[in-house]
Amino acid sequence: MWVKPYPEFSPEKPLFVCILANTGTARIPGISAAGKSPELTDYTPAADAELVETGSVFSISEPAMCPSGAPTPAVLTRASMLLTGIPCLFINSGLRVRPKVPAIDINARPGEDIRQGHAVIDAEDIYMKSVALGRKLSKLSDFVIIGESVPGGTTTAMGVLKALGYNVRVSSSYPDNPLDLKEKVVSDGMKKAGISFGSLKEKPLYAVECLGDPMMVCAAGLVDGLNTKTILAGGTQMVSVLGIIKHLGLERDVSIATTRYVADDKSANFREMTDILGYQAFAADPGFGGSAVTGLRMYEKGEVKEGVGAGGAMFAAAMMGFSQEEFREKCEEVYRSVFSIS
Amino acid sequence: MWVKPYPEFSPEKPLFVCILANTGTARIPGISAAGKSPELTDYTPAADAELVETGSVFSISEPAMCPSGAPTPAVLTRASMLLTGIPCLFINSGLRVRPKVPAIDINARPGEDIRQGHAVIDAEDIYMKSVALGRKLSKLSDFVIIGESVPGGTTTAMGVLKALGYNVRVSSSYPDNPLDLKEKVVSDGMKKAGISFGSLKEKPLYAVECLGDPMMVCAAGLVDGLNTKTILAGGTQMVSVLGIIKHLGLERDVSIATTRYVADDKSANFREMTDILGYQAFAADPGFGGSAVTGLRMYEKGEVKEGVGAGGAMFAAAMMGFSQEEFREKCEEVYRSVFSIS
Repeated sequence: MWVKPYPEFSPEKPLFVCILANTGTARIPGISAAGKSPELTDYTPAADAELVETGSVFSISEPAMCPSGAPTPAVLTRASMLLTGIPCLFINSGLRVRPKVPAIDINARPGEDIRQGHAVIDAEDIYMKSVALGRKLSKLSDFVIIGESVPGGTTTAMGVLKALGYNVRVSSSYPDNPLDLKEKVVSDGMKKAGISFGSLKEKPLYAVECLGDPMMVCAAGLVDGLNTKTILAGGTQMVSVLGIIKHLGLERDVSIATTRYVADDKSANFREMTDILGYQAFAADPGFGGSAVTGLRMYEKGEVKEGVGAGGAMFAAAMMGFSQEEFREKCEEVYRSVFSIS
Repeated sequence: MWVKPYPEFSPEKPLFVCILANTGTARIPGISAAGKSPELTDYTPAADAELVETGSVFSISEPAMCPSGAPTPAVLTRASMLLTGIPCLFINSGLRVRPKVPAIDINARPGEDIRQGHAVIDAEDIYMKSVALGRKLSKLSDFVIIGESVPGGTTTAMGVLKALGYNVRVSSSYPDNPLDLKEKVVSDGMKKAGISFGSLKEKPLYAVECLGDPMMVCAAGLVDGLNTKTILAGGTQMVSVLGIIKHLGLERDVSIATTRYVADDKSANFREMTDILGYQAFAADPGFGGSAVTGLRMYEKGEVKEGVGAGGAMFAAAMMGFSQEEFREKCEEVYRSVFSIS
């Protein structure tokens, strides 16, 4: 069992959706490792989509990597899409850099730096458009997995969860989680927005407007409109979406799937949060410890951990009957093809 | 039987796709009535998508109309979507004005004026992206109807069909079809491109590159990738797509559905063309002669005729068991709601 609990679903028309967004928050030095430098994180979602879709990147000279050299989790997501044949649709929910592959553009603005206290000006508009899109997709698919690529997203997740009244410790794409910096950024944003811990527990969309990012309202709106079996694929960022859904009072058949790197991250409290919020959580282990590829082994040291719906992509592969070994080998194949090294 | 032959299909997951594009050709005075002035045709596809999706328009102060006041066929398409509940996805295949509703952006450039002889610089790229998108959609839907909103599109259709070697007489959104002007524009483009009647019969994508518009390669690529039952919804513009598919040697389960206004247009030769190309054609009659709404009755006088997949939208309504009267009444309801007049 490389995904726990084992995903016993047999959907007829599964669909993978990946929400892409940029934020000003990601440009704060030290916040995000999803890109070689804070400015380069602007290119990460576009490059991730290109990599998942084609195995190459076009918007930047090389695929997104941690400063350490660990590859983007888009490698894992592409491996799953190739193995399972599940179609993947991308959503542009506020990008500075548009991907050079097809993406559903919902005309969202990139998120601002949450230190300004007003990060997602068009939160309600994004939500309503996403509800409508979700309704359409529910007529085509009976099982939707929703991932994201949003650099800086764990900090916005912390902001929203605190505004909703949760003592969250979020995860990080860095092996050393810069929690103090994140706390400071969130605290600055709360002051500027004039809100306090838990003060927006009845206004989850406004919590996103103040301290969140555009992905969150897109994902929550999709879940609302889909009203079908849905898996949120991600770590603490998707926990924030669960928080929004819960505080909106939505009753939907939704669970969360992440990697064991996030689920077991002791600097974070993923399992505690999903328990408190009351949603089923799945954790997937790609078994990279035994990989011949150095870049993949770095995941075992806490690099990257999650993103681009990698946990949900593994969930999908397990659901379709693929073994951990088959998945890991496909990841190695994708990695070698993308980075042209052995 | 208001759609002939009667559409005897019972798909499980039908999908309506509407491809949006702008071209420089539409700005030639007298070419297109799909907008109150040549410049305003730039806004027509975005406004059409907004109207189909929401019943309102945002990108311009009022919905697209002929100079005469006849309403955009988006009214018919919205009526069908409301009646049938079929989901509609929009594709931005080269827009100057992006719609304020979600659309799949394939990063296509707007088409140029075909008098320059090089109208769709990225034709092959659009085609390949659309093949990939079609493959994904084929995993979600077993029956796809493809419409378009491309002002000036009958002139580009004439250009491509002549380059492929067909003596086409295209239809028009004007009651008096400006065929002489269209012939002149196409002739200028052919000279500039250094091609002649039928000289590109073995290079259909290059024919689009020289004289076509970005919608055509998107539609043809979708049909290629879908490889499922597909209806092209439109008049002579979709005939040009059939021509491209045929000359590419693609064998696909594809038919065409249009309005009786196009099928019976004596200035055009729709039925002759579909016979020559060898595809089944459906014609739909909304029965607007008996409508209490002046704007809709203008369709009976040859205004507008087709667009935004209106013929295919009627096909869909008939396929789902709705009568001509139910369809007409829904069109009247949409018209009154959109234009706020009775």
